[in-house]
Amino acid sequence: MTFDVVTYMASVGQQARQAARLLSRADSGLKNRALLAIAEVLLAKSEILTQENAKDLSAGRSNGLDSALLDRLALTSDGVIAMAEGLRQVAALQDPIGEITDMSHRPSGIQVGKMRVPLGVIGIIYESRPNVTADAAALCLKSGNAAILRGGSEAIHSNRAIAVCIAEGLQAVGLPATTVQVIDTTDRAAVGELLRAKEFVDVIIPRGGKNLIERVSRESLVPVIKHLDGICHVYIDDDADEAKALKIALNAKTHRYGVCNAMETLLIAHSRAKELLPKLADLYAEKDVELRGCAASCAIVESMIMATAEDWDTEYLAPVLSIRVVADMEAAMDHIEAHGSHHTDVIVTENYSKARRFLREVDSSSVVVNASSRFADGFEYGLGAEIGISTDKLHARGPVGLEGLTSQKYVVLGDGHIRQ
Amino acid sequence: MTFDVVTYMASVGQQARQAARLLSRADSGLKNRALLAIAEVLLAKSEILTQENAKDLSAGRSNGLDSALLDRLALTSDGVIAMAEGLRQVAALQDPIGEITDMSHRPSGIQVGKMRVPLGVIGIIYESRPNVTADAAALCLKSGNAAILRGGSEAIHSNRAIAVCIAEGLQAVGLPATTVQVIDTTDRAAVGELLRAKEFVDVIIPRGGKNLIERVSRESLVPVIKHLDGICHVYIDDDADEAKALKIALNAKTHRYGVCNAMETLLIAHSRAKELLPKLADLYAEKDVELRGCAASCAIVESMIMATAEDWDTEYLAPVLSIRVVADMEAAMDHIEAHGSHHTDVIVTENYSKARRFLREVDSSSVVVNASSRFADGFEYGLGAEIGISTDKLHARGPVGLEGLTSQKYVVLGDGHIRQ
Repeated sequence: MTFDVVTYMASVGQQARQAARLLSRADSGLKNRALLAIAEVLLAKSEILTQENAKDLSAGRSNGLDSALLDRLALTSDGVIAMAEGLRQVAALQDPIGEITDMSHRPSGIQVGKMRVPLGVIGIIYESRPNVTADAAALCLKSGNAAILRGGSEAIHSNRAIAVCIAEGLQAVGLPATTVQVIDTTDRAAVGELLRAKEFVDVIIPRGGKNLIERVSRESLVPVIKHLDGICHVYIDDDADEAKALKIALNAKTHRYGVCNAMETLLIAHSRAKELLPKLADLYAEKDVELRGCAASCAIVESMIMATAEDWDTEYLAPVLSIRVVADMEAAMDHIEAHGSHHTDVIVTENYSKARRFLREVDSSSVVVNASSRFADGFEYGLGAEIGISTDKLHARGPVGLEGLTSQKYVVLGDGHIRQ
Repeated sequence: MTFDVVTYMASVGQQARQAARLLSRADSGLKNRALLAIAEVLLAKSEILTQENAKDLSAGRSNGLDSALLDRLALTSDGVIAMAEGLRQVAALQDPIGEITDMSHRPSGIQVGKMRVPLGVIGIIYESRPNVTADAAALCLKSGNAAILRGGSEAIHSNRAIAVCIAEGLQAVGLPATTVQVIDTTDRAAVGELLRAKEFVDVIIPRGGKNLIERVSRESLVPVIKHLDGICHVYIDDDADEAKALKIALNAKTHRYGVCNAMETLLIAHSRAKELLPKLADLYAEKDVELRGCAASCAIVESMIMATAEDWDTEYLAPVLSIRVVADMEAAMDHIEAHGSHHTDVIVTENYSKARRFLREVDSSSVVVNASSRFADGFEYGLGAEIGISTDKLHARGPVGLEGLTSQKYVVLGDGHIRQ
């Protein structure tokens, strides 16, 4: 008998939809017990998990995966402990489900408010890191959503083993194992099926490289929560405090290079360029950051490479920074609108009115005054957890925590009221 | 020179994007002055508007439009007064833009909160009623969004004339006329272009018949706020109060037939069917409502027609009602999950625990206890205005007012803070 991916995915979808209905009735206590039970099983099976992971690592080495990918793929016994701890942290978060807000009496006599409810079924498509399997399952479960998880084929043994632990934990507290389903095939057609499953899946969250996210957002018929690019800017204004400007510009670029909230382009007001660019160039030189400047920047710092038009639209994710001298804040905002990715943009200024304008007018998921772009993160913002970052404007925007996995429906209470 | 719809729509999109950026800087006072100025111009040009409308009506009669459509197309001088009054009411609403919520200090020292901002550019595709042109323009303008409006070809003269008034009002207060653009061609390809304009349009709202909404949601690459069906249920529980049950069941069906929040299927607990169905049948008979019952219902009320399987999935929008006897609330919720459209569903019960379960577990945009489904409406809910109803779960759900036309971005305030 041949494996039929269409039938398989339809069955996964139907089971998820059924599980979602059951899970929407689960109270916080039951969901937390499930999270803690899964953590227990993971710890108890730590040895099996690392053994299965070793199979993936060995296959990865045979297939010539580079060392960065192998690093992300590796699951050590400490990694298992961290995964279990992550589940316990999610159990400790407040349950967003069932919260009723904005309850008010209307002139007609009815009472109207909003109740926070799960979205239903969440599909998550991700790469390499097997810990995402447990993290994503935990956030979906806590927010009352059934999950369909599709990890990378390079992590299939690890993900299968984690899936067994999740299923055992769920069943230990009486929840169906289908509450969290890990797609058990490396057939790429399974992704296509998931992206077309409007009937069974309420939202898709892709986590991984740009190719993955582009494919998902191009093909998906299901709504997608995503961010494609993180072309983040820091603008050093005429009225910037020098010490703050240097600190923030350095941190935003060099704290970590491969992250979406790292600065990729530094904009600096013309009036401050001569004074600050040489100091910044020295700081970046210490960290071996390659600088690519506009003509005006290169005229001030000779060691800079001349930037091309392409540089302003490039997310380096590397020790490379483009630098542009701009006339004023207006020109900086124009540059951000033309070249940014609406992710995170920063102004460094002591000027009250300019800070206020920048905050209001820059159309990004996070707009920052006098702090590093690196703060754009679910944990730093106090969401308790993060399933991803959205640069879309509808539904969740910016770091997405538990609340982004929920919806609000209207509830109406009457006493026999009819419309006149 | 032939008219090139692709070039035309690209230019409309670019102008809208530019206008949106300007409008995002407009304060409430300026936006309100624009709304009042447009109202003035509409009243001053009432005669021209009704003359232009007469051209549409005459063309409509020549093209054999039915009387219901001609009714919806007609714009009288009273209609112009109502349109102007609508604009003034929107001016009086609170401006949602700029509101900052959830501002908190984080352990890192930064302050984080959310600021409500416009979505950007909103495309609205609608049919017949020319007053939608002014209503939709008003809601977009108040919420700081540029609008691209595409009315039906049957209303092109009316819509053009209203567009001139809107442009004059905008320019009178110094806002660009491109803040609200009415598509000035009846070429159907313009709709296709609008639905593909991901770069220029942030959300599409279709308003009209099912064919229109199906086409838009099938073709659109831009996110859509929509509701396709309104298959609403009233479930009369074992523990229903008789007087409330009869009142609500009658109102939900007969208050208005052609609306999305009218009841299409009545579910009744087996224990109450014999007592209540004959009384309900009498009430509906007075209103000439055709009843289509399940076998159990038909056994109780002989005059009922036997319902077919298709009836449970049909939105009649007419004096027709399907009726089904169910074992209990569980069976009612199963029916609603299987056949409903997640719009508005009602339980009539005096039982506290059952009301609580129904509210939590029924997955509809409005869930109602002891009140008519007809309350599911932006004005009844106190939103002040309504641009449509959404049965989707992401972003806006239920009646959509000004807030549904906005997004929230994160704002971060620091004092030179960097990530450690």
